[in-house]
Amino acid sequence: MTYTLVLLRHGESEWNAKNLFTGWVDAKLSPSGEEEARRGGRLLAEAGLLPDVVHTSLLRRAINTAELALNEAARSWIPVKRSWRLNERHYGALQGKDKAQTLAEFGEEQFMIWRRSFDVPPPPIEPGSEFSQDGDDRYASLAPEVSPSSECLKDVIERMLPYWYDGIVPDLRTGQTVLVAAHGNSLRALIKHLDGISDEAIVGLNIPTGMPLLYELDEKTLKPVTAGGAYLDPEAAAAAAAAVANQGKAKREDNKGLEQAEKK
Amino acid sequence: MTYTLVLLRHGESEWNAKNLFTGWVDAKLSPSGEEEARRGGRLLAEAGLLPDVVHTSLLRRAINTAELALNEAARSWIPVKRSWRLNERHYGALQGKDKAQTLAEFGEEQFMIWRRSFDVPPPPIEPGSEFSQDGDDRYASLAPEVSPSSECLKDVIERMLPYWYDGIVPDLRTGQTVLVAAHGNSLRALIKHLDGISDEAIVGLNIPTGMPLLYELDEKTLKPVTAGGAYLDPEAAAAAAAAVANQGKAKREDNKGLEQAEKK
Repeated sequence: MTYTLVLLRHGESEWNAKNLFTGWVDAKLSPSGEEEARRGGRLLAEAGLLPDVVHTSLLRRAINTAELALNEAARSWIPVKRSWRLNERHYGALQGKDKAQTLAEFGEEQFMIWRRSFDVPPPPIEPGSEFSQDGDDRYASLAPEVSPSSECLKDVIERMLPYWYDGIVPDLRTGQTVLVAAHGNSLRALIKHLDGISDEAIVGLNIPTGMPLLYELDEKTLKPVTAGGAYLDPEAAAAAAAAVANQGKAKREDNKGLEQAEKK
Repeated sequence: MTYTLVLLRHGESEWNAKNLFTGWVDAKLSPSGEEEARRGGRLLAEAGLLPDVVHTSLLRRAINTAELALNEAARSWIPVKRSWRLNERHYGALQGKDKAQTLAEFGEEQFMIWRRSFDVPPPPIEPGSEFSQDGDDRYASLAPEVSPSSECLKDVIERMLPYWYDGIVPDLRTGQTVLVAAHGNSLRALIKHLDGISDEAIVGLNIPTGMPLLYELDEKTLKPVTAGGAYLDPEAAAAAAAAVANQGKAKREDNKGLEQAEKK
């Protein structure tokens, strides 16, 4: 017997289009992001892969993606669980900043370290910044010492894993099909853990938006039966991955390409 | 100190427009129903009445109403709880039937008894009917003897109250602002209980769709500080109630008016 886990990265947000670092800022889905979410739900329905429970971050772009996808699959009624531990990586002082401006201001080397380093976080956000989570009700019960002011991927893994163990695994253990609707970096953190990807290799892993990624997990080890899982629409996922890779190549000449390469 | 409870009846569903008895059938919101839900969310935000937790039925028209309203109020992230006990009244053998046809077939007296009687349910739905909940995953854990085949309002009160006491009241007791997104009859059942309305008088109570209804409850008695609560937009609620009443008057001459009078 295996356990069934489905990962879903949120669709495009309004801040992607605006070329801004998002992180914990609660940007809305764009209309095309909403359509991505619905397409994800149709893929679930067509595959007969019907979630019994959904876990989301506390950010509306992941929450709304789950809602739209589940509505499309006629599964709106399933139990919903949320945790700040599934949130996107906190982008520190870069949150709310224009990506092209940041690149121009700090140079490509520093910029790429902040975006892609495994263990170097951006500078911390100023307390009380309009783009910080200070005063946001949804984090009111968080102890201040775990409320991040900036995170690298390593930090995300550390704060995400307790929720994997205590929130998600127990639902898998009862045999439920579990949907996790989250973000590029919280999902990379989970995939790194599941597939045992090295600190170096995880940097190159891109997860397409709105594409359900199915993992069958061994019931003893909780490790994937097939490394990397399987996208429900492999062709579309491959095309999306190729587009991301091409944008990555183009970006040295084109600042606008930079932010498209990493949809936060 | 008082507890804060907000009731929200779902917006118009596609089956309202089609003039069909709905009950436990999982009809979607119509586009105007979606807009009603968003307007409800704007009213919550404008009143600064921000829910800390939401309770919904297992039917998508209530679930989606809650999602759209909370998204509009930037409260998508709050905990979500659901129960079949908040579902609409089960309409028995009438589910899926055209209202005008049913009126013509059974006559007005019988029709009005089924629609408005406090304690006479419609005939039970046939087991295995396409409009029954048989085989629906969301009710898989329900014991067969509590899974209804038809309900009158009295039945709805009986099955709803355990969730009020065990699901909703504990959230109120912790001081949270509680939103309940549900249906005409499950909300009438709750209001009858809260306001102590008689079996006769409850028949005349109509709840407008998509209009947040605020109840402040005494912390000792859990009874309303002000009987009947307060609509966040009293003018619009009064207009909607008047429209419902007028439709009710028109319906003796006009079959189409009948179903508009009671949006299931």
